[in-house]
Amino acid sequence: MLHPEYAPAAERQAGLLARPNTPVEGGILTRWRHPVLTRDHVPLTWTHDLDAETNPYFLPRLAVNSVFNSGALAWNGRYYLVARIEGADRKSFFGIASSDSPTEGFVFADYPLVLPDTTPGEVDVYDMRLTAHEDGWIYGVFCSEEPDPSGQDLSAAVARAGIVRTKDLETWERLDNLVTVGSPQQRNVVLLPEFVDGRYAFLTRPMDSFIETGSGGGIGFGLADDIAHAVIESERLTSVRRFHTITEGKNGDGIVPIKTALGWVHIAHGVRTTADGLRYVLYAFATGLDEPGRLIAEPGGYLLAPLGAERVGDVGNVLFANGALVDSGGTVYVYYASSDTRLHVASIQLDRLLDYVFHTPPDAGRSPDCVAQRCGLIDRNRALLGSRDSAKARLAQNG
Amino acid sequence: MLHPEYAPAAERQAGLLARPNTPVEGGILTRWRHPVLTRDHVPLTWTHDLDAETNPYFLPRLAVNSVFNSGALAWNGRYYLVARIEGADRKSFFGIASSDSPTEGFVFADYPLVLPDTTPGEVDVYDMRLTAHEDGWIYGVFCSEEPDPSGQDLSAAVARAGIVRTKDLETWERLDNLVTVGSPQQRNVVLLPEFVDGRYAFLTRPMDSFIETGSGGGIGFGLADDIAHAVIESERLTSVRRFHTITEGKNGDGIVPIKTALGWVHIAHGVRTTADGLRYVLYAFATGLDEPGRLIAEPGGYLLAPLGAERVGDVGNVLFANGALVDSGGTVYVYYASSDTRLHVASIQLDRLLDYVFHTPPDAGRSPDCVAQRCGLIDRNRALLGSRDSAKARLAQNG
Repeated sequence: MLHPEYAPAAERQAGLLARPNTPVEGGILTRWRHPVLTRDHVPLTWTHDLDAETNPYFLPRLAVNSVFNSGALAWNGRYYLVARIEGADRKSFFGIASSDSPTEGFVFADYPLVLPDTTPGEVDVYDMRLTAHEDGWIYGVFCSEEPDPSGQDLSAAVARAGIVRTKDLETWERLDNLVTVGSPQQRNVVLLPEFVDGRYAFLTRPMDSFIETGSGGGIGFGLADDIAHAVIESERLTSVRRFHTITEGKNGDGIVPIKTALGWVHIAHGVRTTADGLRYVLYAFATGLDEPGRLIAEPGGYLLAPLGAERVGDVGNVLFANGALVDSGGTVYVYYASSDTRLHVASIQLDRLLDYVFHTPPDAGRSPDCVAQRCGLIDRNRALLGSRDSAKARLAQNG
Repeated sequence: MLHPEYAPAAERQAGLLARPNTPVEGGILTRWRHPVLTRDHVPLTWTHDLDAETNPYFLPRLAVNSVFNSGALAWNGRYYLVARIEGADRKSFFGIASSDSPTEGFVFADYPLVLPDTTPGEVDVYDMRLTAHEDGWIYGVFCSEEPDPSGQDLSAAVARAGIVRTKDLETWERLDNLVTVGSPQQRNVVLLPEFVDGRYAFLTRPMDSFIETGSGGGIGFGLADDIAHAVIESERLTSVRRFHTITEGKNGDGIVPIKTALGWVHIAHGVRTTADGLRYVLYAFATGLDEPGRLIAEPGGYLLAPLGAERVGDVGNVLFANGALVDSGGTVYVYYASSDTRLHVASIQLDRLLDYVFHTPPDAGRSPDCVAQRCGLIDRNRALLGSRDSAKARLAQNG
């Protein structure tokens, strides 16, 4: 017998799912007021046994903790998100939600994504990037974790890039995990939507070996011949980690890069260490159309950082994005999660984003150089405003 | 001369102490809106010199920072809490508050608990569990910390379980600290209210030695003959730590287990590591009436996790409980602290709690198995709702 609490609960949820969203002006990107997906968007059929006989108190039998980092795709006139859903049991899985709007109305499918279980040691999967490749397939590249084989530290995992593909977003084929010869582990791997030199092109995060060689590591780029058994023999660095920047802790690519007339635009994450844990922000850079692994522009600083209520959640002080899409009007929608808890959207016109990426000055590296950089800006502004003394004159005074 | 600011300050505090509390519906447990104890509940006589001559500015002379982790007891028709109170100087001590209601109106006694000072090296005490034992005594088992003898790390402490007992909640006798032969340190020790095989029964947390043997550790169970000089020769594990669960970092028992017709019900805490520090949630499990050290049910996931303003405090992202009580109507009140800052209460009918403990599925362990578990639930719900296709049919497609 259907539990009598189901109908009112379903009605409340329908209200949430139908809630209109509105832009909040201000900032480089425009944030939208309401999260597009939260745990309250998860269908009641996924969490509650609806039968009053077997669930007399209408308790969640398989509760969901959070809905966050999501791949995104505009496809056949609809908008699709493949979100990371974390159960109360801490295992993540994927759920596909779609809408006819990029900013509201996302509804999950009847079932979670059921991926072929081909990897016996795999305990967790998360953070899928969706790539509509020119080979005709839609790929999902995600993080696949096994326990650390030493078994000494129950928090330690070995992370690799899992790969699935589909042609209809319903039937998914699992391919071999990516092998990167130079890096035993991988997180934040992204597949480019186009071939490069006839090969599949990945953004990677070469880890241990690069760090050991003293380069500090960063976001890598590598090519593989066979997507079904993808092997990257060597990786080159694109956007690198640097001392005392937003990437000093680590960095990783995020959304599937957006192809523009000026280059491939990347929105990645940078991590720094604080006394209160790690802080994750989003930043942007561009690589060349001719060589998608070659950095051609990197604005200093971040594009988007945690703000207000975004700062608080299961893992505080985190913004993360692994999905974006461009609509037919040239607006970019970035689906970003805050504090590993809920999924938001922010939008920006593509030409505005390109202006940001190509005309924001690079990080000057040292505080005195950053001050000089800023005084140059002030000088130019004061000249425009008709003011007389310049920073150079003040510096001469201070000898 | 009594400071003129005392009367209005005392009146403001009286208003706080008299504030009615109301339940906030939703969730497995029902949270109550207002904290039951905060630092603003601490008597002004405990913090301020009230004499205008010697304290002209009406400053706190011995400020209190926080009131949180509390033991709980229903006794002689009243409700008692023995809370951890942390001074601004970071030393904790205990304060006993009582009320004729389990959800509001708690008022501290005239003095903090003054325990016999029998342990010269002891620098801090905290987190007392109150057990009304069938031997006729009320026991308080708490954590007692000494500095690490190496003296190298001023943050490192040696933790043991201290034991006191009383018959009137006024005069307290201190017994020897618990000795666990297999574990040099102990935290989160709980005394069961009944004898087991004629001996005193403790929940423990066997630490170093168990972890070294590769079991991963967890919540232990052991017996002692003499409560005045309690020695546990060996501990067995009950609820264990597991990779990629809410207990992957550590776990420990919390409230004094509740005896029910179906078994002993435990509400414990599980800890995981995040990029933003540790995250503490509450979870439940049950052990056998015949063998209180034998696990008989363990729901997957957590029972209660930090929410909203609870997420923020001195030690963010922490829920912790070391006290609960059952009233004469069969309602369980769980006193839980948020972020090591203030003390809340949540309530649940005992039959509803038992339904949760015995009918929530266990953690399936791996993401693919968790998805299969969830798809099974969805299938049953869809059948009940009259929907046609099932997860199995979809999985067959993806084969």
